[in-house]
Amino acid sequence: MDPIDELIQLLARLPGIGERTATRLAFYVLGSEREYGAQLGASLSHIHSRVKRCVQCGNYGADEVCAICKDPRRDPSILCAVARVPDLVAIERAGSFRGRYFVLHGLLAPLDGIGPEKLPVDALVKRVKDDGVKELIVATPLSVEGEATALYLAQAMRPLGVRVSRIASGVPHGGELEFTDQVTLGRAFEGRREL
Amino acid sequence: MDPIDELIQLLARLPGIGERTATRLAFYVLGSEREYGAQLGASLSHIHSRVKRCVQCGNYGADEVCAICKDPRRDPSILCAVARVPDLVAIERAGSFRGRYFVLHGLLAPLDGIGPEKLPVDALVKRVKDDGVKELIVATPLSVEGEATALYLAQAMRPLGVRVSRIASGVPHGGELEFTDQVTLGRAFEGRREL
Repeated sequence: MDPIDELIQLLARLPGIGERTATRLAFYVLGSEREYGAQLGASLSHIHSRVKRCVQCGNYGADEVCAICKDPRRDPSILCAVARVPDLVAIERAGSFRGRYFVLHGLLAPLDGIGPEKLPVDALVKRVKDDGVKELIVATPLSVEGEATALYLAQAMRPLGVRVSRIASGVPHGGELEFTDQVTLGRAFEGRREL
Repeated sequence: MDPIDELIQLLARLPGIGERTATRLAFYVLGSEREYGAQLGASLSHIHSRVKRCVQCGNYGADEVCAICKDPRRDPSILCAVARVPDLVAIERAGSFRGRYFVLHGLLAPLDGIGPEKLPVDALVKRVKDDGVKELIVATPLSVEGEATALYLAQAMRPLGVRVSRIASGVPHGGELEFTDQVTLGRAFEGRREL
């Protein structure tokens, strides 16, 4: 296969990158310094071996145990379950959560053949017991899969007597009611709070 | 530097890829098979050494001389000057040009310090003489830089007695006059042809 075509095909497998964009990126790399292609190439080639999954929470990090799990200032009694590491990064960026995390690395998706046995529920149960977790906040997406996963986790946690909560759903900050979809508006009304 | 941050920074140097998209891409690679990161990494690392610039026209290819310059069915008397290889690829895709190419790998841009001495004019003059070129079609972009380069090339070719032409500028296929900018409309009127 032609090396340029090969590079274009590989780049086009990235999410949101079509063949047109992949072509532009490939020619950009070809037109830049040889050093840049080499650096980016090495970074991609070695990313899986340089980055480890935290044995306690599934977050990415340089060591066996991630920086958040190691941090003694984080409250071990509140655990936040997320679907993917970028969700954890977004919550950290928001800066309002001071507990610890558990990354599921997936969601229930029965239509795609992803059933409960694919979720790391045993590891989550162990973590809840080991850390004496009092509340599990389920911060999976507000999608069908995210909601199904939240309900499943709530059920699985029942024998442990741990409180399980779900992040709020409603009209986002700055959102116009006029342009908000029906499901979100319905949830915003259901979840209304007294002032 | 953290390996994930490093990968994000390198990806964010690609054109049209901001830090947000770079983050999404980096996590996508981390979440896929190790094999994919390795393949894409190797492809990027070796692209500069696997792809050569054609010594005759500057096009990319696997050999010293590119497939187009080698093709005996291409008319050597018509040469098309383009700024970049993707422009050549686009013209080839359109399929209406049967001559050969000359890739400038740049455009005049005095504001960015790119003067005539950075353009491969000597090589172009040599090519025109060696191949007995009768017409040089300047297919640089219809931008300020592209137009300046076209005028400069026309001047540089004058002593050779070769005919120099410029691709037409006007309203694109399917274009609505209502939404066409003033410069394009002006050019469309200037370049009008008798029916």
